[in-house]
Amino acid sequence: MDILKRFGVSMEQSLLQRFDSFIKRKSYKNRSEAIRDLIRELLVEEEWVEGGKDVAGAIIMVYDHHKRELVDKIVDIQHDFHDIIISSQHVHLDHHMCLEVVTVKGDINKVFELESKLKSIKGVKHTSLARSTLGKEL
Amino acid sequence: MDILKRFGVSMEQSLLQRFDSFIKRKSYKNRSEAIRDLIRELLVEEEWVEGGKDVAGAIIMVYDHHKRELVDKIVDIQHDFHDIIISSQHVHLDHHMCLEVVTVKGDINKVFELESKLKSIKGVKHTSLARSTLGKEL
Amino acid sequence: MDILKRFGVSMEQSLLQRFDSFIKRKSYKNRSEAIRDLIRELLVEEEWVEGGKDVAGAIIMVYDHHKRELVDKIVDIQHDFHDIIISSQHVHLDHHMCLEVVTVKGDINKVFELESKLKSIKGVKHTSLARSTLGKEL
Amino acid sequence: MDILKRFGVSMEQSLLQRFDSFIKRKSYKNRSEAIRDLIRELLVEEEWVEGGKDVAGAIIMVYDHHKRELVDKIVDIQHDFHDIIISSQHVHLDHHMCLEVVTVKGDINKVFELESKLKSIKGVKHTSLARSTLGKEL
Repeated sequence: MDILKRFGVSMEQSLLQRFDSFIKRKSYKNRSEAIRDLIRELLVEEEWVEGGKDVAGAIIMVYDHHKRELVDKIVDIQHDFHDIIISSQHVHLDHHMCLEVVTVKGDINKVFELESKLKSIKGVKHTSLARSTLGKEL
Repeated sequence: MDILKRFGVSMEQSLLQRFDSFIKRKSYKNRSEAIRDLIRELLVEEEWVEGGKDVAGAIIMVYDHHKRELVDKIVDIQHDFHDIIISSQHVHLDHHMCLEVVTVKGDINKVFELESKLKSIKGVKHTSLARSTLGKEL
Repeated sequence: MDILKRFGVSMEQSLLQRFDSFIKRKSYKNRSEAIRDLIRELLVEEEWVEGGKDVAGAIIMVYDHHKRELVDKIVDIQHDFHDIIISSQHVHLDHHMCLEVVTVKGDINKVFELESKLKSIKGVKHTSLARSTLGKEL
Repeated sequence: MDILKRFGVSMEQSLLQRFDSFIKRKSYKNRSEAIRDLIRELLVEEEWVEGGKDVAGAIIMVYDHHKRELVDKIVDIQHDFHDIIISSQHVHLDHHMCLEVVTVKGDINKVFELESKLKSIKGVKHTSLARSTLGKEL
């Protein structure tokens, strides 16, 4: 099990006051949890910039399902990446537009490639990638 | 129905060659689709920066479900935001870590507030927000 | 003068090890300075996202000075924004290309407007904005 | 000299109207220049993400010059990187705070390393990096 360590941090009073105000606005219970989150965020960001490791994330895509053969193409591409796709969830935004959330886990380069392939399909209006982590040592 | 318009774009040959190489790498079929995607992306980005409109997106969170009362807190908070949450999907990353994808649609400020509340819970290791759109006029 | 405050932070050993490795790679002398930097960065980022306050920064632009009337236009626009421009520095990248660094201080909206106006000029190849702060209470 | 090429782009009327409204707000004279800027921006972004090439940019730093030995350390570090630093410009923000703009050109990894070294100095409150380009084939 992971041991909890404790160390001291010094900070100018004026900076600490601004930080405490941030903590309150963001619903943090205490400074430690806010600081841990800042550190985890920069480490996860590094994982995505440096590449080479497995990641977890979600690709969100918005498309018009009335476009001919669009749904077929999306399904085909997703099957080509079945080894990194955990699941896809489909939401009906309105009569025309669909939102699909593709949860992914695995090789970071394959995640980028999958997003490119989905984004480049005609009829896919927008894609966005939520970059997260397998959570090891965080 | 939406009418298709056509217009001409002029570009230095050297820039066009670099763009065509980008298009090929990113699996685009033609320049028009790549340019439409660039324009849609900047418009969606503006929606998120300017605020005030409804958006669609997904909050992804990674947490250790062994932490006491963590799952209860997550469920409680999500219920407080039931009007913008379409659904939550749970993935077991390993024996300890869970990944949860919360698909959201609605008031942009509520989306930011929900992410803050989830992120600030002790035991939640990381959150990330995929920013997308309802797709109107895109 | 600003009083120095001290408080304790608790952290899982594994996270602390990854943080210490980050600190070393980034040349930090100690954890306090790295944590203060993380906090200052998020506060400055908030200043730029929320707007409404005065900021400091630099707009960098790359352009081909052989384009007709380009330099005149750049000078004209900069004069319209003389109240937020501290100075401009010109660098000759090669026979054709110039790099100009425009140091700015003042109303955030004027900074964004100045960057838009410079970027939209034909012949200006690229602009980039370094977002910083007046440094109050940091 | 660079030959100008012309090609056609098709777009839904609704998307084109939103794009034209963007163009007007951002002071562009015509669609071509706005589209060229979008393409140049993504190419420069790729240069910075992929690394390996020479870049141009500016590091902006805000610091309190009353801190002991701070200015000496800043000068020492900048001299270690004299091969990528074109020049430094110093601005007095107020009685305490200084803003320094370090214009850089050269190896992207050295630029990142220089920013890390400057940022990690105690007394340096904030650094920011404007990422630009040598402008070749743009």
